[in-house]
Formats: sequence, structure tokens, C-alpha cells
Amino acid sequence: MDSTKTDKVPEPTLRRLPWYLSVCRLLKAQGETFVSSTRLSKETNIVASQIAKDLSFVDIVGRTRVGYEIDNLLEVLEAFLGFTSIHKAFLFGAGRLGGALLNDSGLKQFGLEIVAAFDSNPRLVGHSISGIPVYHISDLEKIIRRHPVKIGILTVPINNAQEVADKMVVWGIKAIWNFTPLRIRVPDDIVVQNTSLYAHLSLMFNRLGSIEENNEIKGGKK
Amino acid sequence: MDSTKTDKVPEPTLRRLPWYLSVCRLLKAQGETFVSSTRLSKETNIVASQIAKDLSFVDIVGRTRVGYEIDNLLEVLEAFLGFTSIHKAFLFGAGRLGGALLNDSGLKQFGLEIVAAFDSNPRLVGHSISGIPVYHISDLEKIIRRHPVKIGILTVPINNAQEVADKMVVWGIKAIWNFTPLRIRVPDDIVVQNTSLYAHLSLMFNRLGSIEENNEIKGGKK
Repeated sequence: MDSTKTDKVPEPTLRRLPWYLSVCRLLKAQGETFVSSTRLSKETNIVASQIAKDLSFVDIVGRTRVGYEIDNLLEVLEAFLGFTSIHKAFLFGAGRLGGALLNDSGLKQFGLEIVAAFDSNPRLVGHSISGIPVYHISDLEKIIRRHPVKIGILTVPINNAQEVADKMVVWGIKAIWNFTPLRIRVPDDIVVQNTSLYAHLSLMFNRLGSIEENNEIKGGKK
Repeated sequence: MDSTKTDKVPEPTLRRLPWYLSVCRLLKAQGETFVSSTRLSKETNIVASQIAKDLSFVDIVGRTRVGYEIDNLLEVLEAFLGFTSIHKAFLFGAGRLGGALLNDSGLKQFGLEIVAAFDSNPRLVGHSISGIPVYHISDLEKIIRRHPVKIGILTVPINNAQEVADKMVVWGIKAIWNFTPLRIRVPDDIVVQNTSLYAHLSLMFNRLGSIEENNEIKGGKK
């Protein structure tokens, strides 16, 4: 991997690349072999010039008229997005959401393999969920020495979130996928990816509310 | 709700408000009754002036020195974020991720109640998951007439995503919570909230990769 190149990929580009990947998968399933920027644009509602710019960050060259070879674009995008190499992870908090992630074999297809889970609930510790062992959080040191894992998934209740994040950092976790609605505090060199379903929910409620109110206002004016 | 006010709340503010809510919940559990901007700042790593600005959008007044009353701030934030009123939703695609959301009773605490699920798998249709009935997608028209629901959760495979989204729109769904990695195309007046776990995963891989490469480069220079 060319680090100088990777460093410079803007986050909006990184957010759009999975959309192009999905379109390629769909078109491939439909038997297509080439995809043009125009077609990608039509399928994603993103302007073609932006797509060309985004794809200039990945190592792919399109051909005049026909566009990109789908198999090639798929391969390059999957590798670029990190989906082809397996990244091992620990999961912290095997409750509702955590349990659901342990059951989601889809994550492995996208390069994430959960190799162990941690919890403090005696009904879970010592058992396994979807074949993944659940350890007590106090065993983290022992387990991480055996499996030097870099990624931690945080699905504990908010009252434990900071404490567990601190433990992860102490024992060498470098990236935290934070599903809690708490903003965890970590040193600068730790990657935090926030995925709070509840924050997304409130964004949707808010936008839906605004739209409905606007329609009511419009309706009232008629 | 004051629509002119709601319309103007910037999205970054809406993304930060749930963090303040989480802090309030934690502090309340610890027996605190007031929270200052400074304290909120310390707990969230967001500068106090930004917090004051964000909270100016919600209907709350702080007191000099002591700050905001926690019970009051909790109540106001929960209402503002839409977590206190129940929004009914249909779920489309009761597979792995969809099934996990049906099992996640936490959503209801945040104002989202899934009242029915739709799938085409004969092993699921006619059964119920966590007490929520699963119907065949062809029954959508019939069911939505009985339950005029505005929110649809999209957890189908990408090859069905656009088709199912089109159906939702036809039958009156106004907001789509899209968990697929596909960029669905909908009319302008439909709210789409994208929550692609895989897109978040690739962002995290990318940032983790950059950090590790930087460390290797630094290490190599020593």
C-alpha cells in the first residue's frame, strides 16, 4: 500500500467508494463486463466528474467509450477498502447489539473477523455465541497476549463505555468501532469510528419532522 | 414543534446533541443534578462555546455558575431528538441484520417501534420474530393501509434494495433508514438516512492503515 496516497484520500471519497462497489456487484450479477462513469453516475446520483475524481485515488484506468472493466474495478475497490484482507477484532459487550454483530457473518465478507468477545455477565462468560468464545473482561490481558488484535468493537452500556475503552487502549487496541452513543476519550493515535444507531435515528426523525411540517405549512397555504 | 427552528438546526449540531444526552444520563446515574458547559466539554472533548451554541437550538436555559439542570436538559434533549414520541416503522428484509434489529428492544427506548417486517423467504413469512409479524412483501399494500406507517428500514440484499425502496415510496413511506451499502434513488421529498456498517468499516480500516504506515515510516527513520 502506498501510504502517501492512502493518507490523502478525502473522507467523502471513502464514503462514496462503497457505493461504486455495490453497483459493480449488481452489474456483474446481471452479466455486465464494463461500466462507464456515466452508468455509475446514473446508478448512484453522483456526477460523473466526481466519480472519475474519486476513482483516480484507486489504481484503476478506464478505457475510452467502454469505461472500467467490472471484475478489475471490483477487485481494486475491495482491496482498497480493506475488504479482501482479514482484520481480527475483539468485541466488548455481548448484549443485544453485540450479540447481533457476533451473529452477523456478513462482517467477515467485508474483512472483519471477530475472534473473541468480552463481557462481565456470568450467564455469557465461558460460553460462546456463533462459535465465538465470550471471556470475562478481566481476562483481556491474557487473551490479547495470545491474539495481538488491533481492533475493538464497543457495544457495552454507556456507563461502562469509557472504562472499557481505556482498558482497550492500555492493552494495545489501535482502532475502536464505537457503537455507543457516548463520545469516548482516547489518545490521539487511536482511531475511533462512531456508528451510533440512535444518533442516526434522531437525524432521520428530525429530517422527517421538518418535511412533514413543511408539507403542513404548504398544505395550509393552499 | 417550531418548524422554522427545527429546520435550521445544523447537522453537526444534531450529531453532537446525543453525546450531551449520554453525558447527562451518566451524570444523573451518579447522582448529579447540574451540569456546566465546562463539564460537558470535559466529558465530550468539544469546546464549551460550541456546546453553548449547540444547546441554544434546544429550549433550555442554563444558570450562571451551576449550569444546566440535568433532569430538565435530559427531558428537553430527548424530546428534541425525537426519542420521547413513538415512531412506528416497517422493516424490509428480516435476514441477519434485519433480524438483529427486530431483536433490539433498545430501539424502542429511542422512539422507534418496528410494527411489522416484510420478507420473501417462505421460512420467515407467516412467522414472527420477537413478537413482530413477518409478512410477504406482496402484502405491503394491505398492511400499510391498516397501519399508515411513515418509516421503512431497509435491510434487504443489495440486488433487491432499489426495487424494495421503490415499493416503499409508492405505498407512502416518507423516510428510509438504509442499512444497505447501495445508494438508493428516491424522490426529493423522501428522507434517506444511510447507515452502512461496511462503509464505516472501510473508513476505520483506512484510517488504521494510515496510522500504522505512518508509525512504520517514523520507526524506519529512527
